[in-house]
This record gives sequence, C-alpha cells and structure tokens, in this order.
Amino acid sequence: QLTLAVLYPPPCRSCPCSLPHGLETSFTRLMRHLLSATSSLDLCVFAFSNQKHRAAATAEWGVAVSILTNKNYVFISGFQIGALRRAGAVLLFSSLPAYVHHKFCVVDSQLVIASSLNWTITAFQSNRENVLVTEEPDLVRCFIQEFEQLWEAYDPSRYLSMCISCHDCPRIFRGQNKGTRWHSR
Amino acid sequence: QLTLAVLYPPPCRSCPCSLPHGLETSFTRLMRHLLSATSSLDLCVFAFSNQKHRAAATAEWGVAVSILTNKNYVFISGFQIGALRRAGAVLLFSSLPAYVHHKFCVVDSQLVIASSLNWTITAFQSNRENVLVTEEPDLVRCFIQEFEQLWEAYDPSRYLSMCISCHDCPRIFRGQNKGTRWHSR
Repeated sequence: QLTLAVLYPPPCRSCPCSLPHGLETSFTRLMRHLLSATSSLDLCVFAFSNQKHRAAATAEWGVAVSILTNKNYVFISGFQIGALRRAGAVLLFSSLPAYVHHKFCVVDSQLVIASSLNWTITAFQSNRENVLVTEEPDLVRCFIQEFEQLWEAYDPSRYLSMCISCHDCPRIFRGQNKGTRWHSR
Repeated sequence: QLTLAVLYPPPCRSCPCSLPHGLETSFTRLMRHLLSATSSLDLCVFAFSNQKHRAAATAEWGVAVSILTNKNYVFISGFQIGALRRAGAVLLFSSLPAYVHHKFCVVDSQLVIASSLNWTITAFQSNRENVLVTEEPDLVRCFIQEFEQLWEAYDPSRYLSMCISCHDCPRIFRGQNKGTRWHSR
C-alpha cells in the first residue's frame, strides 16, 4: 500500500512505514533516481522484498518495469508478485543453481544504479551499504548487455522446452501453479 | 596454500584449484587490480572465505592490508584468520546487529573496486555478479571515508569500554577466547 509515498509529493503524513519522511536521505535520493524514469526501469536484484519502495509502481505512470530476480526469493515476505504484476511489471525468475547476485537497476537505458544493496527493508534500514549511480555510457552499456543476456537466458520458453524434453523438471510447473506467469518482454 | 598463484607468474601448473589458469578472466583481472597495490589494500567485505585469492598475501611483499568484515562470518570455512594474520593483515570485525554489507576494496587510496560480489569461492565460480573499478577521485574519496568511519566505529576499544560498563556483552570476550586479537591500524 505504501509504494513510493516516501518521495512522491506531497509527503504522505499518514504513511505508517518507519522510514524518514520529508527528509533528504540516501533512500530518498535512490528513490528520486528511480522515479526519474520516463520509459523503462530494468531491475536485476538478488532479493527484492521491500514493499515500501517497490519500483513497479512506476509502471502505473507508463514506465515499462522489468524485474529479474531469483526464484528462491519470490515467496519471501514482502515480495508481492501479485501487486507487482498488477502494477504492470514484467518479472522473470532465475531458476538455475547459480544465483543472480546482482543488485543493479538501469533507468531509461541511460543511468545505472549499482550497489551492494539487496532491495529489502533490512538492507535499507539496518545495513551499511554503498550505491553507485552513473551515466557513463560504457558502464551503462555493460549493464544493459548483462540484463539482456540474463533476460534471454532465463526466458521460460527455454525451461519449458527443457521440461518437455526431459520430463523431470517440475519446478517451472510448480511456479505456474502458484500463479507465476511468464511474459515476453 | 594457493593464495595468489592464479595470477602470479609463472602460473602454478600444479595448483589444484578449479579456477582457470593462464587465461584472461574476470577473476584474473580483479586479481591484477589487487596485486597492483604498492602501499595499501583496504577491504570491506560482508563475507570473506576465498583462500584462493586471499589478498592478505600481498602483505608479504610490503603492502599494508586492512580487512573489515562481519564477525558472524569469521569462522566460516576458508576464512583463515590465522593465515591472514600471519601474512601481516590487520583485521577488524563488526559485531553490532547491523551488517556491514559492503563488498569494496580501496587500492593504494586511489582505486576502488566495488561490486555485488562477496569474496567467496561460490561467488567467483557460480554466481552472476558485477564488479566496478574506478579511479574517479570523488568516488574514491567516498569509499575511503566510509572505510575510515567504519574502522573507527568498530575499534574494539569502544566495545571493550562498553563491556566494562555494562557487564552484559560477552561477545567480544568469546572472540578473544577463540584467538581473535585486536590491532590498531
């Protein structure tokens, strides 16, 4: 219910979250970069469970939000697949043994936010973390390439064809039973 | 036993580790940056358990190595406090509830390696990660400040005085019993 109220003017005085409101903080600066998106927001995050800033809300004002995260973390508290999907976000979940351990975001294909930070409430409120923001074209290009490569690698049609051929991979189908649907980007 | 053989010429043909040898990889590029240190190497890492590249070995050739990591991860397999200390590294361990979740390194106070990467063998061999290397002075200054601030914050003399006054904090003393000693930097 909170989504981006932290930054969105006017400040939501009744917001029950424990983050600072009306203050300039690292969190609000990060949110400002996310909210600067006008066309696309590509998130690639190891864990994503912070309902207070779920970037997918930007989808509501016409930004294409794509989220790639680890399947193991999909059902942790706060992830809210349904809310993200209803807001228009497209999600892909890595389901290979190797973790997608990135914590980056590409805004409008021209700004990168890369960090040590998982997008969880603990990380924002408790940990010591660092966040780098850059528009340096060569760096941005690297992150876009990585995102696109992973997006292709975790395209569910690859898994589905694997499952059809090997008949021993119930993971994807379990995901479908729980309401996880796959979308082309 | 392996330390930096991966990069150090000539390549150690008998090295039993599973990392590529004699190849240009992300790992060897990272190692090259670490080995470029001539005066200091300041590591601030959430987890550090990769004996294959333990940077403290650089201390053997006159580089001052300072490592700040989380106390909870000190005794995981591969950390090797003793080996690091014998190589001359100075270690500090955060023991507050909040995690130091950084994964960065400052080389000679003029180059920063910041990443999504914990310094574990799993991270290097299995995960999808990103590593940023920069000499941009403003960025380097930020990381140096953060390192120095944390180094001061986790100065054990602060904990010890806390313990003396409150008499209910056995954590530090347990650490001492296990051979964890504190050094000024």
